[in-house]
Amino acid sequence: MVRIISSVSNPTIKRIKALYDKSSLRKSSGEFIVEGVREILRAYQAKYVLRQLIFNPYITSIESLVSIFGIEILEYDIIEVNDPIYRKLAYRENQEGLIAVFKEKSHGIADLKMQTDSSLYLVVESSEKPGNIGAMLRTAEAAGVDAVLLADIKTDLYNPNIIRSSVGAAFSTQICMASTEEIIAFLIQKNIKTYCAYLGDESQSYLSQDYQGNVAIIVGAEDDGLSIQWQHPNFQNIIIPMYGKIDSLNVSVSAGILIFEALRQRKATLS
Amino acid sequence: MVRIISSVSNPTIKRIKALYDKSSLRKSSGEFIVEGVREILRAYQAKYVLRQLIFNPYITSIESLVSIFGIEILEYDIIEVNDPIYRKLAYRENQEGLIAVFKEKSHGIADLKMQTDSSLYLVVESSEKPGNIGAMLRTAEAAGVDAVLLADIKTDLYNPNIIRSSVGAAFSTQICMASTEEIIAFLIQKNIKTYCAYLGDESQSYLSQDYQGNVAIIVGAEDDGLSIQWQHPNFQNIIIPMYGKIDSLNVSVSAGILIFEALRQRKATLS
Repeated sequence: MVRIISSVSNPTIKRIKALYDKSSLRKSSGEFIVEGVREILRAYQAKYVLRQLIFNPYITSIESLVSIFGIEILEYDIIEVNDPIYRKLAYRENQEGLIAVFKEKSHGIADLKMQTDSSLYLVVESSEKPGNIGAMLRTAEAAGVDAVLLADIKTDLYNPNIIRSSVGAAFSTQICMASTEEIIAFLIQKNIKTYCAYLGDESQSYLSQDYQGNVAIIVGAEDDGLSIQWQHPNFQNIIIPMYGKIDSLNVSVSAGILIFEALRQRKATLS
Repeated sequence: MVRIISSVSNPTIKRIKALYDKSSLRKSSGEFIVEGVREILRAYQAKYVLRQLIFNPYITSIESLVSIFGIEILEYDIIEVNDPIYRKLAYRENQEGLIAVFKEKSHGIADLKMQTDSSLYLVVESSEKPGNIGAMLRTAEAAGVDAVLLADIKTDLYNPNIIRSSVGAAFSTQICMASTEEIIAFLIQKNIKTYCAYLGDESQSYLSQDYQGNVAIIVGAEDDGLSIQWQHPNFQNIIIPMYGKIDSLNVSVSAGILIFEALRQRKATLS
């Protein structure tokens, strides 16, 4: 159903603005904002519940929405706003004329689906930079990783910068959010081979490891690395050997190198 | 020589502030700002000419500077400022009490030193996101890449966000800035094996290539990828195979995966 709102002080408009700005409102309501056609489509296809769709008729149209999302889209709460209101709401510079309000999904470890005896997981602990988290979700999705487990994450998953830098992978990848303790217990209980990106006495090159079967790759925070809890006899510390003066990589680059080395080995045995 | 400046309207202070803010002044003067002890030390060690060193005595001290940089540091123009002036100048949140003005180096392709018959180059074309450029410089330095060639770069190399995200690799890595035409001519003239990250009909998996000898890896802009000029019969298009719905990676993640696959092969033949 399409309705028109032409006042910026309309409560619906004010609430959408607040969902952008306030992490606390996102948390209490369980709702969040997505901007951009590609990202909204990914969330919709991933069966997030669509609460509202706001469009700017100067940029897009009802016909265009129907062609992107299908005719069923008309059953949702679609709001047409004028250009000034839209610009007040929109966060991005390159505007596509479409903003959506979605309802969060549950991301508990109990919701995690393990599909086979050859799952590949990426665990990210305590990361706080939305750009890095988004880039890792994007990498994990593109690599076909089975799930990303966010341990003690310090930002909210539906932060607009995470959604943007993940190019929508925040929706199409299976994500679990839990404490480091819960995730470690899960990895041990399921007997998953666990490789921690950690520089210690016992660390081995990531190239000398075997990534077949159920495997988890663990990366830590930008500044402090992994917490001490990961120093567990069941887990193997790994490093990426380096050859310059700088002895660390951006965490999303490290995660990419480790995941694609695991894939290289896993796909080689299939062919 | 140490001098004290206590007025915010002092011309030296105003000029430093302007070097932060104005890309045009950085360009016309050939000077740029570096903040952070680690980054300043890298630039100093890389023999960039130090013009001024500004310190906040509430955070650091002359004694500390001497212990970090050596006694020779006292021959430079060292400026002590009070806390309010320092805070007005500083860009970063985590302040280490030290800001430096350095003189640019020449980065023309004629300055490029080729060391052996087994050089590894990263070429980055038209990138415009300082965070990505900085992360790629960091990766290249950590990987021991011989030089990073920036083709038709759309931002200035001494942008504070590049320096910050490179954690100083902007200084300790050999960098060349030139047009795409010049760099292509160089690669052909020197007979360097060139692998372009480009999705085309003839593209092959990056895993099926041989990265021994003189090799260049070429990555393109975030949105548009490589320009058509790279479609050259001497060059090989490569792709990173993907297994999800998302069909591209963050450019700095792609560069990391490609460089470390090249290293894996190159180091294997050494051992």
